Amino acid sequence: MTNENQNATHTHSEDLAVIEPQAAAPLESFEQSFPSSHKYYQEVSIGEQTLRVPHRRVHLSTGDTIDLYDTTGPDGYDPTQGLPGLRNTWGPSLPPGEGGVCTQLFHARAGTVTPEMAFAAAREGVSAEFVRDEVAAGRAIIPANRMHPELEPTVIGKAFLVKINSNIGNSALGSSIPEEVDKLRWSIRWGADTVMDLSTGKDIHRTREAIMRNSPVPIGTVPIYQALEKVNGVIEDLTIEIFLETLQEQCEQGVDYFTIHAGVLIRFVPMTAERLTGIVSRGGSIMAKWCLSHHKENFLYTHFEQICELMRRYDVSFSLGDGLRPGCISDANDEAQLGELAVLGELTRIAWKHDVQVMVEGPGHVPLHKVVENVELQQELCSEAPFYTLGPLVTDVAPGYDHITSAIGATLIGTHGTALLCYVTPKEHLGLPDRDDVKIGVITYKIAAHSADLAKGHKGAQAWDDALSKARFEFRWEDQFNLAMDPPTARAFHDETLPADGAKEAHFCSMCGPHFCSMRITEDVRAFAKEHGISGEKALEVGMQERSEAFKASGGELHMTPGA
Amino acid sequence: MTNENQNATHTHSEDLAVIEPQAAAPLESFEQSFPSSHKYYQEVSIGEQTLRVPHRRVHLSTGDTIDLYDTTGPDGYDPTQGLPGLRNTWGPSLPPGEGGVCTQLFHARAGTVTPEMAFAAAREGVSAEFVRDEVAAGRAIIPANRMHPELEPTVIGKAFLVKINSNIGNSALGSSIPEEVDKLRWSIRWGADTVMDLSTGKDIHRTREAIMRNSPVPIGTVPIYQALEKVNGVIEDLTIEIFLETLQEQCEQGVDYFTIHAGVLIRFVPMTAERLTGIVSRGGSIMAKWCLSHHKENFLYTHFEQICELMRRYDVSFSLGDGLRPGCISDANDEAQLGELAVLGELTRIAWKHDVQVMVEGPGHVPLHKVVENVELQQELCSEAPFYTLGPLVTDVAPGYDHITSAIGATLIGTHGTALLCYVTPKEHLGLPDRDDVKIGVITYKIAAHSADLAKGHKGAQAWDDALSKARFEFRWEDQFNLAMDPPTARAFHDETLPADGAKEAHFCSMCGPHFCSMRITEDVRAFAKEHGISGEKALEVGMQERSEAFKASGGELHMTPGA
Repeated sequence: MTNENQNATHTHSEDLAVIEPQAAAPLESFEQSFPSSHKYYQEVSIGEQTLRVPHRRVHLSTGDTIDLYDTTGPDGYDPTQGLPGLRNTWGPSLPPGEGGVCTQLFHARAGTVTPEMAFAAAREGVSAEFVRDEVAAGRAIIPANRMHPELEPTVIGKAFLVKINSNIGNSALGSSIPEEVDKLRWSIRWGADTVMDLSTGKDIHRTREAIMRNSPVPIGTVPIYQALEKVNGVIEDLTIEIFLETLQEQCEQGVDYFTIHAGVLIRFVPMTAERLTGIVSRGGSIMAKWCLSHHKENFLYTHFEQICELMRRYDVSFSLGDGLRPGCISDANDEAQLGELAVLGELTRIAWKHDVQVMVEGPGHVPLHKVVENVELQQELCSEAPFYTLGPLVTDVAPGYDHITSAIGATLIGTHGTALLCYVTPKEHLGLPDRDDVKIGVITYKIAAHSADLAKGHKGAQAWDDALSKARFEFRWEDQFNLAMDPPTARAFHDETLPADGAKEAHFCSMCGPHFCSMRITEDVRAFAKEHGISGEKALEVGMQERSEAFKASGGELHMTPGA
Repeated sequence: MTNENQNATHTHSEDLAVIEPQAAAPLESFEQSFPSSHKYYQEVSIGEQTLRVPHRRVHLSTGDTIDLYDTTGPDGYDPTQGLPGLRNTWGPSLPPGEGGVCTQLFHARAGTVTPEMAFAAAREGVSAEFVRDEVAAGRAIIPANRMHPELEPTVIGKAFLVKINSNIGNSALGSSIPEEVDKLRWSIRWGADTVMDLSTGKDIHRTREAIMRNSPVPIGTVPIYQALEKVNGVIEDLTIEIFLETLQEQCEQGVDYFTIHAGVLIRFVPMTAERLTGIVSRGGSIMAKWCLSHHKENFLYTHFEQICELMRRYDVSFSLGDGLRPGCISDANDEAQLGELAVLGELTRIAWKHDVQVMVEGPGHVPLHKVVENVELQQELCSEAPFYTLGPLVTDVAPGYDHITSAIGATLIGTHGTALLCYVTPKEHLGLPDRDDVKIGVITYKIAAHSADLAKGHKGAQAWDDALSKARFEFRWEDQFNLAMDPPTARAFHDETLPADGAKEAHFCSMCGPHFCSMRITEDVRAFAKEHGISGEKALEVGMQERSEAFKASGGELHMTPGA
């Protein structure tokens, strides 16, 4: 999901104020972000190789630890030098198939567990065979261009933890390459599982190179943006040759997935004429305009198999773009959107024929009661290929809060099987997200994804909630902060009211008043049980029930006759 | 729903830093909050009386206007003097029934449309008869103590717009009376439909008086807090006499609804012993401790009918408290919670027998897949009395973001019929909300409530979204800001990137790049339709379809054979 809006704040007017680049204060360290946590590397054997798989281990004051999924990547590297080539240490590549095919889908179907599958499986706490099965069925993908050695592979599919994507990228108005690399690093610090580089304007190649060489997570792009720059912004001049040349360049750089709007067919374009907000996808509107200008079918559709052939050689995954997604509540789930979705299903199966991995993009703006239909239809029409949605936003009326309006839809659609959620920041529809906005967007989407994991009953998800709630109940304030999704913010909010260190040791909390305390009550109950020589809830319940029954029999004042 | 946590930050330790009261900068004006809006008073006749019903009318640059629900109350009054007594101008009261009963429920059942019903109906855009029917059936309430003349009545029920509650109130650590009145005024500015005063500590009576006399929205309290202060915090010393005396005092002040934890029965208390977080409701834990100490049944339960008799004389509504609500994901929907809910159903029917209006409180912390069950069970067990929930939070791991974790649950439970949503602020579990936190909490819950209205297909809800989306699509930036739920924030976020005024006039937006623009594409499509002398979507579609079919027939490169 491209969320293409975000870096698209270009103007047709020349009289705008010059934009000051943001001040680039250094990022806080891993230790500052996550006190009492350290990177723990699980060693996983595959053949003669040993993979070192990262987790974040949180140390509690009780001596216990809890391991959380870690996206933060290797620490302590100079961004101007890039990250080490982790996958280069994994020994010789597996032999390619016919025509040089080397995709995870090809190997999975051949029954081969790749290091990438084993690595992703260990992060999830599942078997590598299970990952292989899901990839082979097309229900999951491991975006992993063979030219992206810095990658720590991850698996995206409904059987796994729900993943989130953050969007970065500079624009004509915007920021510098170091700022974009900082946004990448900040995104993965807070939990982004994938990142899209949506850069436009100058320096598009160099920006991407800087991002690729610093990214331990899969990087996605929308190649039509660069193709359009190559024809100086004249949509009519776009050709399949220029597009393929652009793909080749980006394949070589190591991009892991491409958003390609091959489902915007000419017959769907008129269906958008009476929409309230027409076509809001940048890629979608480019292709729609191309189709209209030439009175021809979308060249990404008519040359789809050539595109597959190129992508299979690098193992770049498709993210089939929903160029006709709704841009407002009124346009949700309309004919244009659903017509395109059916085409994306056809294209999914064609890509699979070429051993190319596929996920499918979805909306956008959808009222809550129409959200679930989106993922159910997508799963049906696209043969269970992973779904990747932008939110969806469940109302249009709260610009400035669209991280929230969209997280509501994202949690519901994630619970029902969407595999990857594209974040939305508070600046959506209004301006360019800065580093703070990126953090808020990522944290908000981690909430959506983790809440969906809980609702799906994903193994291990609830252990995190239980550890934090236990710390809360036992007044272990430091543990509560350290287990929080955003420890510095939790601590700062607490300290605003009660800055003294004593407050973090006192049996003092927001669940407690001066005259009573929920923890003490529960202790009373537990003491009562012990004192009466009975243990366990059931025995106690019996005893108390007797007393209550006796009370009732004695003629308590209450008459339980049902009223009107 | 009491969300009792929020002002409960008292300490058992004496060594805490002294808390600085917040600086009390003056509130911004109505005009600053809502540029290009004005209060519009609809005149509604009932008998010989004319009611003036407020709406907020937003003026657009197109000359159009849109009316939005308004909770902001009369403007320009000195908080030290209080608001005028609106309801005192509505002529003589209706004749009371037997025993002095004068509740909305009594009148509704008698077939009488009260001014309160007519007023609330006009705000919703429905007939007064419809409101009367819903109140008579117990499916809706109009909390309106006859001693609260400042009230602008509102109706709470699943057939109406979803409402939201904000919590304010001082505490031993906390703020001053003027600060709490400011929080009240700030709450209703941003859309709170009801407000609970959860004050504890000193000045509890005076604080409430200041709030009552300044509130155009229904005010709720948890009377057990004040009763406990009267016995110097010794739970064992609480009696029904002290409780009734406290109720009487608060009835006289004009409190519109009382949270009463009459469902915390002694037999349920042991069921909480093995919970991860025991009892987290303050009222619930007080009553549980009282039951255990005395080995007696909850006196609020055994004297429930006496309480009803008192409340009917003032028309104070019940908000039956869920004292055993879960305090974490692990404890959701357990035996204690659901056992109490069944008792609340019994109590609902008893209150109805006494003509007392009732709503029922619900959780709390619930994973997304268990959310809907809560409202469905409540509606069944409580004979469709309105449900009033606190969130629920769908994960425990994000302290600092619990406005978001809870708005996700709130939107879903609102969509399925919950009538009133109690807000949660970012400070939940961590400290005392300040004025900024109150605003964020209210806006977040307005998002949840409005999104639920959209999903329920509530008449008129979508007109707001459509107006904003149309403004967005047509680059009417000022209209987009003015229609936003929080205009100053939307404008400020936009201006961070593009401060120049030119940017608000340019055809410039985040849906647009330098080389293309979704609006122009749609214009191209519309122009094409016009040029070819065809109008409407269907005709166009046919034309384009033909071209597309022709392309395919000519042997386009694409082979649509389904792949593996």
